[in-house]
Amino acid sequence: MANFHIRASLSFLISLYALSSFCIFPPALSFHRRNPKNALRLLGKFSRSNYTGPIGAPSYQFETRYFDQNIDHFAFSNLPKFRQRYLINTEYWSGPDRLGPIFLYCGNEGDIEWFAANTGFVWELAPRFRAMVIFPEHRYYGESMPYGSYEEAYKNATTLAHLTAEQALADFAVLITELKRNLSSQACPVVLFGGSYGGMLAAWMRLKYPHIAIGALASSAPVLQFEDLVPTETFYDIVSNDFRRESVDCFNTIKDSWDVIESEGQKSNGLSYLTETFRFCKKLESSDELSNWLSSAYSYLAMGNYPYPSDFLMPMPGNPIKEVCKKIDNRPNGTSILQRIFEGVSIYYNYTGTAGCFDLDDDPHGMNGWNWQSCTEMVMPMSSSKNTSMFPTYEYDYASDEEWCLENYNVKPRPTWITTQFGGHGFKNALKTFGSNIIFSNGLLDPWSGGSVLEDISETIVALVTEKGAHHLDLRPSTVNDPDWLVEQRATEVKLIQGWLDEHFDRKTRVADM
Amino acid sequence: MANFHIRASLSFLISLYALSSFCIFPPALSFHRRNPKNALRLLGKFSRSNYTGPIGAPSYQFETRYFDQNIDHFAFSNLPKFRQRYLINTEYWSGPDRLGPIFLYCGNEGDIEWFAANTGFVWELAPRFRAMVIFPEHRYYGESMPYGSYEEAYKNATTLAHLTAEQALADFAVLITELKRNLSSQACPVVLFGGSYGGMLAAWMRLKYPHIAIGALASSAPVLQFEDLVPTETFYDIVSNDFRRESVDCFNTIKDSWDVIESEGQKSNGLSYLTETFRFCKKLESSDELSNWLSSAYSYLAMGNYPYPSDFLMPMPGNPIKEVCKKIDNRPNGTSILQRIFEGVSIYYNYTGTAGCFDLDDDPHGMNGWNWQSCTEMVMPMSSSKNTSMFPTYEYDYASDEEWCLENYNVKPRPTWITTQFGGHGFKNALKTFGSNIIFSNGLLDPWSGGSVLEDISETIVALVTEKGAHHLDLRPSTVNDPDWLVEQRATEVKLIQGWLDEHFDRKTRVADM
Repeated sequence: MANFHIRASLSFLISLYALSSFCIFPPALSFHRRNPKNALRLLGKFSRSNYTGPIGAPSYQFETRYFDQNIDHFAFSNLPKFRQRYLINTEYWSGPDRLGPIFLYCGNEGDIEWFAANTGFVWELAPRFRAMVIFPEHRYYGESMPYGSYEEAYKNATTLAHLTAEQALADFAVLITELKRNLSSQACPVVLFGGSYGGMLAAWMRLKYPHIAIGALASSAPVLQFEDLVPTETFYDIVSNDFRRESVDCFNTIKDSWDVIESEGQKSNGLSYLTETFRFCKKLESSDELSNWLSSAYSYLAMGNYPYPSDFLMPMPGNPIKEVCKKIDNRPNGTSILQRIFEGVSIYYNYTGTAGCFDLDDDPHGMNGWNWQSCTEMVMPMSSSKNTSMFPTYEYDYASDEEWCLENYNVKPRPTWITTQFGGHGFKNALKTFGSNIIFSNGLLDPWSGGSVLEDISETIVALVTEKGAHHLDLRPSTVNDPDWLVEQRATEVKLIQGWLDEHFDRKTRVADM
Repeated sequence: MANFHIRASLSFLISLYALSSFCIFPPALSFHRRNPKNALRLLGKFSRSNYTGPIGAPSYQFETRYFDQNIDHFAFSNLPKFRQRYLINTEYWSGPDRLGPIFLYCGNEGDIEWFAANTGFVWELAPRFRAMVIFPEHRYYGESMPYGSYEEAYKNATTLAHLTAEQALADFAVLITELKRNLSSQACPVVLFGGSYGGMLAAWMRLKYPHIAIGALASSAPVLQFEDLVPTETFYDIVSNDFRRESVDCFNTIKDSWDVIESEGQKSNGLSYLTETFRFCKKLESSDELSNWLSSAYSYLAMGNYPYPSDFLMPMPGNPIKEVCKKIDNRPNGTSILQRIFEGVSIYYNYTGTAGCFDLDDDPHGMNGWNWQSCTEMVMPMSSSKNTSMFPTYEYDYASDEEWCLENYNVKPRPTWITTQFGGHGFKNALKTFGSNIIFSNGLLDPWSGGSVLEDISETIVALVTEKGAHHLDLRPSTVNDPDWLVEQRATEVKLIQGWLDEHFDRKTRVADM
């Protein structure tokens, strides 16, 4: 890989692009040469880009409502209100007199209906706890657009300015407070749920609004993936380990493939050959496009490395990395490395076998919410290490990311703001002495787990870690294929949530509202 | 008082006007007829309107520095930065290696030098704790003006938009984080101090930024003076009781005086007579002007009802209400009620005896920061009850306040925002299960004490209540005249702060930073 001059800064910006409307965190790597224009278009359609309803997933009953929110909760600029969408189900709710719980899922970066469909755990809990369920949508995603439309909201830095986590938390706080007031249910306990960025929101909301919610289940929430709180190589090391644990050969084949792709791309007709081998609909403009396409797939495979077939990011078999590695490893002797890689990655991009050819640059949105968030608050440094990663080596380079953000969004990131606002190096200590009732659940196969909380902080701030879990698996609907450890994990979560509620009810009956 | 058609809504807006650059909360009453134009000018100079350095107070050594802050921490609008002033003293600081504490006073609504001069307690603690002392100024006050100048910052609702408590807390958080980083003193514990609105900021900051500060002394902080958390008549009932406890006659004379003033004002030449009797420099335009002037004085007397002479709001004798009532009660038989009132109130407005005549409408600033805050977040409902108050009866009327704010500032208040953001009805319960290390200190003579926390919430969230204390007396410099109960109160505070620090040091030595 001597000639790998590729800079993979911007990493956290660019590849986020692909999946930002998919709830799940996008991986943070990009291998193309620096070319902001290409960069933005590069990862347009690595997975389904528009949610069109659950495919084969259970469907849940809810009512769709809208709530007028202030665009700016923390200043009194004369901005128009916007309509925040929320989904609500009160079918099982025991009501205010019985202090019926309210389960609130903190909507994250995408269409809220998509989250609702993929967060079966919350729906399944509702009848058991006689809880109301509410899924508020995150501002600037789905239908919850300031200034009336996506086009207006995403027009420029001024209109995008208020797409921040703090404003989103305030939306949730104002909405639930008003909703409870209207239902005369102020005494009803609110329990927060969230996965990925939504899990971060749930944990942060419990910290910032302890008077509003009694506890939070923060699944796969990398609240420590900021500044230097965890090593920058963590994410890609975990992805790489997920492959190595299935097969060292597979890991090595992938690690070797980048140079092959690079040198093939430099041959005359090399790009045509790569285009054909990987069945792209349009001819590749550089081999980096292919490298990015592949590296994204590996990362998403690691996130969605569930023990049963799923249709979350893309339709995938159970244990998809095992399947990918089988394809890579088990080709007949003499099969080229590129052919092996193609066969392997098809598990991700074409499991159903229906794709005729692949697109790289389908960019339905132009600008994209998570890119903006990454260019402002959500600065998550990542790198790929020479020794432990199967990805090309690169160093984290904040300066070039900043440059990209200024060029493309006319905004300067504030890389230390999230840690100032929500806690950085002292975060766990602060939690220990201050916080309570948070579950940080993580599966160690999930590359985001390395940026989360993996040990108990106190008696009431606990880490539930599953060795074989992937990205917020616990929040998914239960299936007949759930392994025992998953069933147990969810049972523990139920028990902990019941404990929070019991404590709340106990306090309510002992003393009047202080 | 049958004919008292006066509406005293706007109360919380208008009289705040007088003292908003004086750190101390302004009282929340105004008896003039609704006339926004008059309203704004009415209470211009009821006490010193510009701080020109301590008079006879101890002077403290500090360096003045400036820090570039974002105008909007919670959005990424392309606004210019502004220079936040802060005062700093590191003379006694034991430094990062010894985990030297950092004592941070949360600057409130006024010039930070004024607070520094009147918060001797913090300065006196510095050598004992080997602490650094820092007094950051609140944005939009003193020299810390966004957009470069007072005139620009206070131009309109757009420029004033970011004058909010949340932004001020974020200023403190960003400043102290950056300062600690620069001094390699990230492990040094920060203890917060604040009085009045600054006390609210200190308590809220401990709640919202527990990773930044290990504890807070919130003196005279009416964190519950919102919505319907405490009865609206609380404030004026306490002022009234302060007078009644000195003398029922005095209380009754004041209670009777409003009708006398009103009917005198309706006579031909009545206003001239009132102007002359009360020695105003310019002729009164209505008797309401006089009523407002008097009611403000009574409220400020209650706040500054210290056991020794002070020069905080105005030069005043010790136990000033006792002195006022002596003047009111001890005139020779036949002295008119108006003459009694004038003699009494002169204790407040003219204790030094140097005032030739009094001004009503000196308005050096035009618009005023606390008025803005009252028209946006700081909506503190107040009323005056027929039976228990010595002030004219009136009901709280939110609608007319809102109207006034729209007319005068082009802004609509958000009366439920502070409780949503920082806690309302569930505030104490949330504190109990979530917070720690906050002292709510209050003196029961202080009319703001009724809106604060007066009982222990938990082992580490404690209320220190003194029967004879007034508005954040504990934060003032110690004097030879301090009564025993005050000495004891401060000793308890020192002990509690020492406990927070010991716990912090203990944790630091037991485990590395988690």
